[in-house]
Order: sequence, then structure tokens, then C-alpha cells
Amino acid sequence: MTDTVVRPNKPATSKRTPAGGAPTTAHSAAEAHEPRIDVAAVTDLLFGTWAETRREAREMIKDSAFWRIEGQPMPEHRERVLGQLKLLVDHGASGRAYPVEYGGKGSNGSNLAGFEELVLADPSLQIKGGVQWGLFGSAIHQLGTKQHHDAWLRDVMNMELPGAFAMTETGHGSDVAAIGTTATYDPATEEFVIHTPFRGAWKDYLGNAALHGKAATVFAQLITGGVNYGVHCFFVPLRDDEGAFLPGVGGEDDGVKGGLNGIDNGRLHFDQVRIPRFNLLNRYGEVAADGSYSSEIPSPGRRFFTMLGALVQGRVSLDGAATVGAALAEYIAVTYANQRRQFDSGAGTEEVVLLDYGKHQRRLLPRIAQTYAQYFSHDELLRKFDGVFGGTADTPEEREDLETLAAALKPLSTWNALDTIQDCREACGGSGFLAENRMVGLHQDLDVYVTFEGDNNILLQLVGKRLLSDYAKQFKGADAAALAKYAVGQTAGKVFHGAGLRRFGQAVADFGSTARSVELGLRAEQQHELLTDRVEQMISDIATRLRPAAKASQAEAAAMFNAVQAELIEAARAHGELLQWEAFTDAVNKIEDEGTRQVLTWLRDLFGLSIIEKHLAWHIINGRLSTQRAASVGRYIDRLALRLRPHAQDLVDAFGFEPEHVRAPIASGAEQARQDEARAYYADLAASGSAPVSEKSLKKK
Amino acid sequence: MTDTVVRPNKPATSKRTPAGGAPTTAHSAAEAHEPRIDVAAVTDLLFGTWAETRREAREMIKDSAFWRIEGQPMPEHRERVLGQLKLLVDHGASGRAYPVEYGGKGSNGSNLAGFEELVLADPSLQIKGGVQWGLFGSAIHQLGTKQHHDAWLRDVMNMELPGAFAMTETGHGSDVAAIGTTATYDPATEEFVIHTPFRGAWKDYLGNAALHGKAATVFAQLITGGVNYGVHCFFVPLRDDEGAFLPGVGGEDDGVKGGLNGIDNGRLHFDQVRIPRFNLLNRYGEVAADGSYSSEIPSPGRRFFTMLGALVQGRVSLDGAATVGAALAEYIAVTYANQRRQFDSGAGTEEVVLLDYGKHQRRLLPRIAQTYAQYFSHDELLRKFDGVFGGTADTPEEREDLETLAAALKPLSTWNALDTIQDCREACGGSGFLAENRMVGLHQDLDVYVTFEGDNNILLQLVGKRLLSDYAKQFKGADAAALAKYAVGQTAGKVFHGAGLRRFGQAVADFGSTARSVELGLRAEQQHELLTDRVEQMISDIATRLRPAAKASQAEAAAMFNAVQAELIEAARAHGELLQWEAFTDAVNKIEDEGTRQVLTWLRDLFGLSIIEKHLAWHIINGRLSTQRAASVGRYIDRLALRLRPHAQDLVDAFGFEPEHVRAPIASGAEQARQDEARAYYADLAASGSAPVSEKSLKKK
Repeated sequence: MTDTVVRPNKPATSKRTPAGGAPTTAHSAAEAHEPRIDVAAVTDLLFGTWAETRREAREMIKDSAFWRIEGQPMPEHRERVLGQLKLLVDHGASGRAYPVEYGGKGSNGSNLAGFEELVLADPSLQIKGGVQWGLFGSAIHQLGTKQHHDAWLRDVMNMELPGAFAMTETGHGSDVAAIGTTATYDPATEEFVIHTPFRGAWKDYLGNAALHGKAATVFAQLITGGVNYGVHCFFVPLRDDEGAFLPGVGGEDDGVKGGLNGIDNGRLHFDQVRIPRFNLLNRYGEVAADGSYSSEIPSPGRRFFTMLGALVQGRVSLDGAATVGAALAEYIAVTYANQRRQFDSGAGTEEVVLLDYGKHQRRLLPRIAQTYAQYFSHDELLRKFDGVFGGTADTPEEREDLETLAAALKPLSTWNALDTIQDCREACGGSGFLAENRMVGLHQDLDVYVTFEGDNNILLQLVGKRLLSDYAKQFKGADAAALAKYAVGQTAGKVFHGAGLRRFGQAVADFGSTARSVELGLRAEQQHELLTDRVEQMISDIATRLRPAAKASQAEAAAMFNAVQAELIEAARAHGELLQWEAFTDAVNKIEDEGTRQVLTWLRDLFGLSIIEKHLAWHIINGRLSTQRAASVGRYIDRLALRLRPHAQDLVDAFGFEPEHVRAPIASGAEQARQDEARAYYADLAASGSAPVSEKSLKKK
Repeated sequence: MTDTVVRPNKPATSKRTPAGGAPTTAHSAAEAHEPRIDVAAVTDLLFGTWAETRREAREMIKDSAFWRIEGQPMPEHRERVLGQLKLLVDHGASGRAYPVEYGGKGSNGSNLAGFEELVLADPSLQIKGGVQWGLFGSAIHQLGTKQHHDAWLRDVMNMELPGAFAMTETGHGSDVAAIGTTATYDPATEEFVIHTPFRGAWKDYLGNAALHGKAATVFAQLITGGVNYGVHCFFVPLRDDEGAFLPGVGGEDDGVKGGLNGIDNGRLHFDQVRIPRFNLLNRYGEVAADGSYSSEIPSPGRRFFTMLGALVQGRVSLDGAATVGAALAEYIAVTYANQRRQFDSGAGTEEVVLLDYGKHQRRLLPRIAQTYAQYFSHDELLRKFDGVFGGTADTPEEREDLETLAAALKPLSTWNALDTIQDCREACGGSGFLAENRMVGLHQDLDVYVTFEGDNNILLQLVGKRLLSDYAKQFKGADAAALAKYAVGQTAGKVFHGAGLRRFGQAVADFGSTARSVELGLRAEQQHELLTDRVEQMISDIATRLRPAAKASQAEAAAMFNAVQAELIEAARAHGELLQWEAFTDAVNKIEDEGTRQVLTWLRDLFGLSIIEKHLAWHIINGRLSTQRAASVGRYIDRLALRLRPHAQDLVDAFGFEPEHVRAPIASGAEQARQDEARAYYADLAASGSAPVSEKSLKKK
């Protein structure tokens, strides 16, 4: 026990010493005499298609005016973030997605890439910006027509017109089609009457609603001539110039939230509020002066999905922002784990750096692999989004693809961000719990990402239904058709469903380079096969269980569907994991630098095998892995962790964060300085001859 | 889609209608015509041995003066909680554990039971109370002698003397033996000199240190006559009556934390601070006036463990408090899920109550089972604690048992609390993210429970080493002895290790009643066998892998140990799960009421099978389950979930919370009122004949 005082008989050494503290492996790639990654090149790879905008955004937020102040009370935090939105306007960072004629840049991909980086400054800034320009402004842009753009877009862009996006109600979130707010057309005055019929129909959780919103894009059931034409979007002024509610408008503050307290979320209700006919955002549905309704999309269901689909960008951007947030937590935890020492190794010389512990490697390295996978799959998603919204690839199939891809990826990345940030905070012990070290704040802010812009489970269920319907299309029989009909019927009229996955069994572009990862029969090809088979088999099993539903009563069919709900969600998650794995593999295959490709191939293998390990029982039960091979998965992961350990710092350095983005004292080098100081103290004490001897050594004499 | 408006053609119905919204099963036990639990009796069962104190504490905290104010800024929150501690004094709730002669009640079990309930009022209150009376005061009580009790205990109890517990340093948390602070005896003045030799040796994360602490129990290396006798505890005054630091004492505020911001955590450092010899808390080690050291425990390692073991109550109380916190989140989420409706079932009539969804049952019901298991295992832990500290069962073996049991249970319950609270918050969607609904605040406050009072992974590693050493004792061979020596050597002198688990294979008291749970060969006996076998086999496998370590160099042996670290921690977790299962089973077997016993047997089965499902691959790979039987585990869980669904509300009602404990608007009945209002609105509209028709129905004409 009392070794402590006499133990450090070596002089203090510089960081990442491979000496006594390294029971497992080298600490750095240089020491390992192994391939190493080209950090700068990997940063480029991770930044992806809109790297330039990301760099611009990161440069901008080096200004401390953009930073979250930990512990700032809610009222001040709200005002600060409002001011930051105006700063974004000053930097020309507010409207990259809007048409050039209104001062924008017409670049959808670039716009989201820039916003995603704001999570490093303050997630409240990212989300309040998202409310203003991605939801409120996008509703005007995507659901309105030129007259509306002319009227409002410039003011939206420059924050003259802050607004709320009033879709969700207290009583209806994911089930948008069932909202209660009505917009009844009055041909006598050529006005719509916006009305909240009961408490559950109050609009709720709306950013900008509690304080700053001057107007809102309000979703309501459009009723004209005694017919309900379903949910449409209306521009409704909320407040006068002094910030007081206009007549008939009321609301409440949502108060303190689990995070994102820089945003003034609130509730709104409308008591027979009259707005001009002009204020119907009429791109997909129009009411003439006489009250007659027309739409270019005759099917009510399809029209609804098209309108909601126009707003997919929220989900896309959350996938990216969650990935950046997870990366920041990993940077902090890994940097600290490479400096912080605790306990000696049993070898008796020096305390061990945290990342040299087997458990610490096992908890942190797979998380890095997961985040890399997300970076690559997100860039694919962002390119698809840009293609659809930029018009270069705007077909119904591409739109459906985009929606399904977003619904598959956003749940995985947002849940992963929470798990990763939590684990990183725990890996830093008590210092991880201090707000100054960022991780607790990140967790609090990103928490709601898993349930807003589409609850994760609901989104995965959509993906699952799409997979079921794809599966049914493979068959011609009447039962299969009925099944498909049932599965789609579950969604139709309820929530928008996506379409157009990568086809089952579609090969990843190039396996040429994977030979080097051959090990234990768990090479890239086998990983791909295992991941693909799992999705196919699960969907096929679910479809088989649902087959009797075609001939059952509606209630029985509903019960059958409900019995497979959890499994269907799990199948959708498996599909998302497959998509991430494929994106990771595509990215690795394009790398030319050999060292980089080698290390990222290991990392991809770690990602693939970690997923396979998570579902190991499934693979065995379904005859995809022998028990022998299954038993080797864990050992292979252990070996990969050892191989990757020397590259851990490089891999998180490649996220490209600068000190102004990190800001966590424990990842600043302060810990290394403390370690060096302590070791120097003990070394000097030992050298001075005045060090006390340990009681234990005394007893041995 | 536009069914919404015309759909509700049934009159609004009372709560828990078994009509259209019930695709799966009955909603309540009454409807199910099945056994049902005696809610009040189950509450008694859960409240356990010190039910009376729990009721007293719950009654006391109905007073809103004890409640957390969501969003309250840190400075005000700190003052509020300080005031609440004084309220506890007024209520006689501050010193139940202290000897009667100092105004306490001498009841250790009762004391912790009461404190655990405070988590319902504000976890900051529970923990600041724990700092004052469970750590600072306990150090004086447990490590000091009568002279110290006489000097300080009364003032500690009545908050005249608020104090900090200064063990952890910035540089050393779990590895207490390696702390840097020194206490050097000066025989010339008969004083100890408390000194902080470098930045890493600052005391850190200490409650009461930033503001309120007038003194601290400081752990430091005791040096006298040139010999370091290891870590001892000293009473060190910190501040004068005006709150200013005394000469030589300095410190910093830890600032905002992820939660528990009602506590003033801070850092302390000492520059040659002199304290009288009297201030050594000398129960286990004494320094005479001339500087000679003596102790009733000659072994430095054993003495260290004994001192730290005297402070085990923190871990014990966290196990209980985490369980109460998880129970509260479950009560809120289940109550809401029984009222909130979303989407129609596909059967076309009415929106479905959340808890009727298969996924929702699968996510919430196993969590209830887990929490029940924790209640029962916690009561066993608490009784053991009370026996040891109350003196009725204070043997070295019992002490070791207690420490190991606490180290096994605290990690499982605190991690489970975080996962449960998070899942419950997600299950409530956006309203779960509002602070008023409690769950985000609970998560933030309980976050640090997983790393303080012993980092969860470190605690589990201790348990794992104990299991390894128990295993080695079964053998006589030289190798096994060496192995045992190695495993213990890993701990000795580093952190205190516990001892005395239930012996492997020890039977649960009575299996007489489990015949009714026979299903699919996964009865209680099989569950017990699977859970027990897993622990034994994992430990045996690890021991085999470590065998070569006995003949290896220290560095090689350390590397071998490191390679199995993650697996050892997993084995310890399996052991903790087994202990929880056994406690649950013991509790069920004592129930006399048939309905209650039946339902809780299902719940215990759900707990057991959920654990088995989590480790399913292990059971298959190791030949404990055939793939066929393994495949049936998930289906059995599905059936149990259906069977338990009607009992869900009863099971969370049995936690015995009253509205003043819950305080979450979404669990107050407000949601039911909103649902009823909405349905009445649509019913009236339909009856009036003025409801708009849907566009879809129009097209069909």
C-alpha cells in the first residue's frame, strides 16, 4: 500500500511512455512500427463532400461569442442564443439553402453541413437555427410558392421575422395526420379561421414559441365546403412588435427542459384566428376564392407524405450533428485516457495510463469505430439530400430513398450519441461530471434528438414496414399482396413512409482491398453476408408470422402486427447498421494511402464485428455462425482493440477539433502536466534521500 | 388520413377501456379475470425491513420545502439544500445512525432507509445529507474514538458543524492508497502537518467544500519518524465563522456539474497546515506524543481495508436510492402509457393506449422486473449492513460479505437507474424532456452515482477478483495458490477488497412454489442453474487463462490479467445478477397471497429470462442452452409481457408514491382528462351532424 511514496524511483518521463505503464501494447502509432494513418487526410475524408463549409463553420465558432456558458440560467441563455442567431446572419451562415434571388446560396448539402458543426459551439444554437431556417423558413420555402417567398423569405433569413414551426400538438406528435387544429375556410371574407378545439390540440414543444416567434407555420386540418382535405400548413402571425400575442392567439412557456435551454420552447393555441387566404402555403394544395379545393396531387395520402417529406432535412441534420457530438466526447475521453494514470499495473513500477486497460479499450475503441461509420453514412445521406432538394436527382424514387435512409440512420446515430457521450463521461470519472468538461452538457442537449423530428422507434418502424413491403413485392401470390397491402395500410394516412432502400444483396462497390483483413473467417465478405442475411431473414420471418393477417379480421390483424412490432423495429435497426457498414466499407475502399487504409480497415472490422457480437445469439440460432466461430468473435475484437490502441489518439485527432471547439480542461494537456509534476515530485524526493520509507518495507527487514 | 375528424364515432369512454384500443390484452388486472396483486401488501414487501422509517421519510417530504425547484440557478439551489439539511435536523431525521448518547438512534439500517427516500424530494438533498452525516460524520464516528465523538458528533448532527469528506484527489479517485496528501507528525509541537505536495494531490469533488464546510475529514499519508504508515484520516478545520479559509487552507469551486447542483462541490489544498495530535481519528492507528506509531491491526493492508470498509454505507445507500429513483421514473412512464393514446391500431376505431403496443411493453415491463429485484436484493444488503454496523453480526467474514455485496449491487442498480430513467423519458416523448416531468432531472442527478463512492467498473473488478480467489481456494495445487496470490496481490495495498459471497451453488431457500411457472423448460430451477453456471464457468475460464501468470514475469502477468479484465468485470456483473435473482426468488417464496405470488412469480421469470436473453449467445456457446431452447426465450418473454400487461399499473402503484412524491404533470391524470376531452369533442361533433366529411370518403362516392 505505502509503495506510493517510494515507488516512483524513475525520473518523470514525457508523455506516452512505453515503459512500465504499458502492459498491453504500444501507446502510439509511431512506437508501434506499424502502418499509421495520415491524420490530415482522414480529416478530409471525415469532413466529406462539404468539407469547405465545415471548415468555415468551425473557423467562425472559434469566436467565444458562440460558446455555451455552462450553468447560465435559462432566461439569459435564451437571449444569448437569439443574439447568436443574429451573428450567424452577420456571417452569412443563415441561409445557404435558400434561393440565390433571396440572398441564399441554393446549396442544401452545404447548408446542413455548416449547421451540424454548430453543435460544437452550443447545441441550442444549432437547434434554434434549425427551427428558424430549417423548419419555419423551410415550410415557407418548400410548402409555399413564389408569392410567399417574396413576402417572407428575406426577413426569415435575416432574423427580422423569427418564427415557430407549429406542427406537434400536446396530443399528437408522431401521428401528425391526427392533429386537432382546424383551418376552416370562410369564402365570405376569403379567410381561413385557425382554431384549437381542445387542450390536446394546443401546439406544443415549439422552439421560438415562448418568446421570440413573431409568426408560425401552423399545421392544421384544412376544411372548406364541409370537407376536410387533411393537414396543410398556414402562415399565422403571432405577436405584435412589442412581443404581445395578437388577438385570439395564446400560449405558455414550456419552461425548463432537460437540455437545449437556450431555446424558448412553448405552447400555442388559437381561438378563431382569421388569416387571409394568401397565408395558405399552397404549393401542394390550393383553395380558390370561392372555397373550391385543388391540388396537383389527387391522392390525399400521397399529398400528405409529399408535404411532410419536404421537411426531411431536420432528420438529416440530426444524423450529422449527433455524429459530431459523439466525436467530441470521444476526443475528450481518449485524450484524457492517454494522459491520466491510475493504479499500477501489478508490474510494480509506474501507474498505468487509462487507455492501456483492457476494459477501457473495449469501451472506447468500438465507439470510435461506430462514429467513423456514421461520418461515412451521413455523407451519403447528405449527398442524397442535396441531390433531391437541389434538383439534380429529384425523382419520386430518390425522395423515397432519402426519407427511408434518414429514418434508418437518424435513430442509430442519435441513440449512439447518447450512449457514447455517457460512456465517455463515465470513463473520465468525477471530472467527466463537471460541466466544464462538456460531456454532461452534450448529453443533456442531445437527449431530445432521439425523440424529436420523429421518435426513433417510430422512424425505425417506418423503415421496417418499408422492408416488409419490399419483401412482399418479391412475390406474386395473393397472400403476399394482401400482406403488402396490410403493411402499407398500417402507415398510409398516418405518418409519411419512405421508400427506396438499397436493394437487398446489392454489392458494396469494391472488395479488392479487404484481403488483408482476412482473419478467422470473419473477413469483410463474411461481415457483409452476416449483416445482410440478418436483415433478410428477420424480415422474412416477420412476414411469415404476418401471413395469416391477410385473412384475419382487422382487430386480429392488428394484434398480429403488434406482436411483431418489437422485432420489426429490431430488423430496421439491423438494416441501418448494414447501411452504415456499407458506407464505411465504400469509404475504406477508396483510400489510397496504404497505412491509412490498413488502420481504417481494422476499424471497419471492429465496427462490423461489434455489431455481430451484439447480435451473436441471433446469428447462432439462425445457423449463420457455428458456436465455434461465434466464440472467436469476441477474441477477434480483443485483438483488433490491441492493434488499434496505438492509433487511438490519431483516430480522434482526425476529427479535426481545435482547442476552441474542445474547451474541456481535462483534454487540454492539464492532466499531463499534473502527472508530470507529481512524478517529478516523487523523483526529487527519492533523489533527495529524505523520502519516508514504507511501513511494509520496514516490516520486511 | 383524414379519418381523424370522422373517426371517433364512439362516445368518449372511461379510462382503461378494453375496447378497440386493446389489440393485445386486457388493460387491468380486474378485466383480465386473472390473479391480481394485493397492492398494499406488495408495498409493504418493497418497503422491506425498515418500512416504518420509509413511511416517515415520505410523509416528511410531502412538505414542498423539500422539493427540487427545476431550473433553479446553482447558487440559490445550494442555499436551499443547505436549509433543507437544517429542516432534516428539525425533523430528527439527521442522525438515526449515531449513538443514542449523542442524540442519535443507533439504528444503521433505519438511517439509510430514511435517506434513500429523500431522492424523491431532491437527490441533492440525499447526497448533501450523505456527505454531512454519512461521510464526514461517519468518518468521525467510525474512524475516531470517544474523545472525537464527544468533541464533534453533536455539532455534526445538528448542522452546527457542516463538513467535507476529503478523500478523493484530482489525481486519485478509486486508488485511495496512492493519494498524495501528507500528514507528517512533528513531535516538537505534537502536531500533524497537513500538506498538499502538488496539484494532482488537491482534494477534489468534495461536497460542502466550496462553501459550507467548516471542517473536513482529510485522508492523508501518515508519516512519523521517517516512516509512512499509509492513509489515515484527520479532522482539519477549514473556515472561520465568517466562512473565510483558515491560514494555509485554500480551494476552488468545482462549479456547475451535470446534476446535483444543490451541492457545493469544491477543491481543497493545504500548505503546511498544523493540527493537534488529537485530530488524528485514531480508532485503527495511533501516534503517541513521542511520535511512535501503534495499531491494533498490524498488517498495513488489512488496516487500510478496515478503515475504508468502515465507510461502506455510501455504496449501500446509493443502491437503495438508485432503486427508488428508477421506480419513480417507471411509475411516471407507466401511468402515462396507460392514458396516452397515439395512432389507431389498424383496427380502425380508436387510438391505442401506448402500453398496448408490443414495443412499449417490451421496453417498460422488464424494467419494472429489474427494479423489483433491486428492492429485494437491497433489503438483504441493508440488513447485512445493519447487522455488521449494529454489532449483531459483526464478524470479519460478515464485514467482507457486506463489502462484496455492496460492490456487486451498487454498480448494477445505479447503471440500471440511468438506463431506466432514460428509457422512461423517451417513452414519454417530448413531454418526457420537460423538466416538470422529473425524469431528465433524475437522470442528471443520478448520473454521478455510477462513478462516485467507487467507480462501477472498479467495484465490479473487486468482486471479480474475490470470485477468482474463492475459485482458487477450491484447489490445493501450487499453481492455484499462486493464482490466488496473484489475484489478491492485484488488490492488496490498492483498494479495499470485499469477501464472503454466498457460496457457489448455495440453494435458494425454497423452490416449493415455482411449479406454476413451469414453461418451456425455463422454470425457476433452470433460470437459477443458468445464472449460476454462467458465473462459475466464466470465473473458471478466466482462472484457466490466468494460470500461466503464476510462472510469468510481473509484467507478463500484468498483461495477462489486463487481457481478461473486461471479461472479469462481466463475470462480476453476472454474479450481481444472480444475487438479485436469488433475492427476488426468496421474496416471492415468502408470499402467502396466491394472486400476488403468481404475478410476482411471472415478474421474477421476466427478470430471470431478460438476463438470460441478454447473455443468450454465451449460454449457447457454452452448451448451456440448445439453439432451440434459446430461440424460445424471446417468445417466452413476449408471453410474460402479455400476461403482465394488465398488472403494470398495479405493479408501479405498489411503489407507494403519493402525488407529492410524483409531482409530474403527465402522471397526474391531466393526460387522461385531455384524452377524454378530445374524444368528447369529436363525439359531440359527430352527433351534431356538422362534422366535415373526409376527402377520402368523398372520393369513394
